[in-house]
Amino acid sequence: MRRERSPARQDALRQHNTSLVLQYIAGNEPVSRARIAAATSLTKTTVSSLVDGLVAARLVTELGPEARGEIGRPGSALALNRGGFGGIGLEINVDYIAVCVTNLVGEVRYLRTRARDNRGQSPARVLARAVRMTRTAIEVAEAAGLTLAGLAVAVPGPVETDRGLLRLAPNLGWTDVPVTEILADRLATHDLPVVADNEANLAALGELWFGGHADLGDFVHVSGEIGVGGGIVVGGELFRGARGFAGEIGHVMVEPDGPICRCGARGCLEQVAGQEALLRAAGLTGAVGTSIGQPGGSVAELLARARSGDPDTLRAVESAGRALGMGLSATVNIVDPGTVVLGGLYAALEPWLSKPLLEELRERVITHGWSPVQVLASRLGPDAAVRGAAGAVVRRVLSEPATVLRGAGP
Amino acid sequence: MRRERSPARQDALRQHNTSLVLQYIAGNEPVSRARIAAATSLTKTTVSSLVDGLVAARLVTELGPEARGEIGRPGSALALNRGGFGGIGLEINVDYIAVCVTNLVGEVRYLRTRARDNRGQSPARVLARAVRMTRTAIEVAEAAGLTLAGLAVAVPGPVETDRGLLRLAPNLGWTDVPVTEILADRLATHDLPVVADNEANLAALGELWFGGHADLGDFVHVSGEIGVGGGIVVGGELFRGARGFAGEIGHVMVEPDGPICRCGARGCLEQVAGQEALLRAAGLTGAVGTSIGQPGGSVAELLARARSGDPDTLRAVESAGRALGMGLSATVNIVDPGTVVLGGLYAALEPWLSKPLLEELRERVITHGWSPVQVLASRLGPDAAVRGAAGAVVRRVLSEPATVLRGAGP
Repeated sequence: MRRERSPARQDALRQHNTSLVLQYIAGNEPVSRARIAAATSLTKTTVSSLVDGLVAARLVTELGPEARGEIGRPGSALALNRGGFGGIGLEINVDYIAVCVTNLVGEVRYLRTRARDNRGQSPARVLARAVRMTRTAIEVAEAAGLTLAGLAVAVPGPVETDRGLLRLAPNLGWTDVPVTEILADRLATHDLPVVADNEANLAALGELWFGGHADLGDFVHVSGEIGVGGGIVVGGELFRGARGFAGEIGHVMVEPDGPICRCGARGCLEQVAGQEALLRAAGLTGAVGTSIGQPGGSVAELLARARSGDPDTLRAVESAGRALGMGLSATVNIVDPGTVVLGGLYAALEPWLSKPLLEELRERVITHGWSPVQVLASRLGPDAAVRGAAGAVVRRVLSEPATVLRGAGP
Repeated sequence: MRRERSPARQDALRQHNTSLVLQYIAGNEPVSRARIAAATSLTKTTVSSLVDGLVAARLVTELGPEARGEIGRPGSALALNRGGFGGIGLEINVDYIAVCVTNLVGEVRYLRTRARDNRGQSPARVLARAVRMTRTAIEVAEAAGLTLAGLAVAVPGPVETDRGLLRLAPNLGWTDVPVTEILADRLATHDLPVVADNEANLAALGELWFGGHADLGDFVHVSGEIGVGGGIVVGGELFRGARGFAGEIGHVMVEPDGPICRCGARGCLEQVAGQEALLRAAGLTGAVGTSIGQPGGSVAELLARARSGDPDTLRAVESAGRALGMGLSATVNIVDPGTVVLGGLYAALEPWLSKPLLEELRERVITHGWSPVQVLASRLGPDAAVRGAAGAVVRRVLSEPATVLRGAGP
């Protein structure tokens, strides 16, 4: 008996198979149509038809000079189109705003970080500045021929991702800012889908996708900035927790009688080992423009002093390393990751942080004796979140190509 | 074209369908063959044949007087057989050993807890005692007509479950004890499959399966005993971490200059809010036989004094509640569960613990203002781990009935 196939069913099936083929190409490029057919169990005719659609939609391209102009030729190798779709990532942080454009494989086409003290500024004002930086990035992307599939914004606090609501950004003094709504409204002429997420979550994903690690396994990414954030990756995916707020390592208590945190608690890790505490302990002012992205800023000065062996600086970094080790010990005892990645400011400080940090882990993590966690420095450093944001956009294109295929294709 | 079906393929298919039917019955009992067929998309003939096999193997039973003696009658309701297979759970803890037999639905058929200070005792000696208690339980189960499908043992430390190796039990002073190997060897005449797991993990599963909650969602179960353990349940399954050692809440630091823990670190939660610290702070000796399972023991005395409003006792419990709140704040900030279940000794102490505990959560958990975690007392208390252990055995029968079906069936 032959089953009826309604047009709706046919369409859903084609979408599913298109996604399957695209993801196979993404994970195995360069790859031939024949290999795709063998791996997906689709017929060669179906694969060829789907690939033709993906090539026409500028998601996939044919490699090699012999393939040029011969779209559909079965023997030629296929790869993701580096010049077709792209994603835009935006990061609104406490002392900087960053914007990044990547192509479909996550290669950076544009990246700008502007140091700027956003504390005490209204969301409207800071988002207006972010919108201006975003417009410039869009112009550059379009001039380079990229079609932007969306915008993802990283913000320094817990986000309800389903409605793009930043619930709290303690270091900015913001509560309940509808980030995606505001950005989508201000960028309405560009008609870009906008999503928002916690910057530490997107930094962990940036590390997973673009960190240059062969196989990171399950890991925790801790990013040191004015705020200290954590992102937990389990089985290749972000571990979000029951309500979506997991990974708040910066608010783990490390000093019961320590300084009051902007979240209201006492002795939070970020008050003891965050960027401001580090600068203060090293005798540097934590004034405007301290971001690591700022040449000549206080963070650059901190790094220069650490490199030159300045005793006050080294003492400050060692003390931060101990506090970070305490906060990470709790995290490792609770989550049991295989690896901890030091991100943000901590990536650059790793040569001086790692010894006291490992001493704390050795003392405080119950499994350390037979199963020590691996500690690595991020190669992306403070760019991880904005790269992860742009990456989240292009990853969505690969998993749901239908979102950009409407109106395109044969 | 008709596909050839090899005997091996047929067998695998039948096993898969048997498991499907059994799990549907488990989740929906009482249920008719017709409803099983409708829900599983298997033919009524196939369902009837599989059900006949399950009834013959004593996994499933027919309900209602009209069904008696008429096995196979399509209209009669089916349910799991309460008198067929069972599981045995064993818990070796610091100051007690417990053993539990449940039937296929987890109903307790036998449960004994013997207070006993196992500190300073060799694994051989403690396990020998546990084996004696287990033999008695096996006799009782067999006398009641239950066929035991296996033994799961809960131990107070991180376990490599794939090889049943207890890596460390700090409060017992044990390292690298091959628990399953020793028990399987000593119980060889009974031919029971043996598995081992951390007691806090099994307690969390006990809470999930038998805790009497309608829908617990993602939760953390923290059990207060001499050691303090945690089990994290996400999406209805235990969250084990990269190496299987997640949930070590008892070793989260709550007092940087606190007492040295048996794990080697300083200021661990269990040193500040564990059973020994609580008894000491309340002016009770933490001598042999302090377990909550022991009438007249120090823990029973602690509870009696708390109920009578003894100021020293209430101060001690309040102080433990604060420390527990600190350790749980770290856990909630990192894992973001929807619910925290207070287990072990903490279940009975909940009326006095919850106020200081919630104050700490309110102060220290960054999301508490708009998304507070729910705190509940376990109704299983110190029985959760041994019930979870027995439950793990019968759950395995339901998910992999082939393990007990060999040799049975039509």
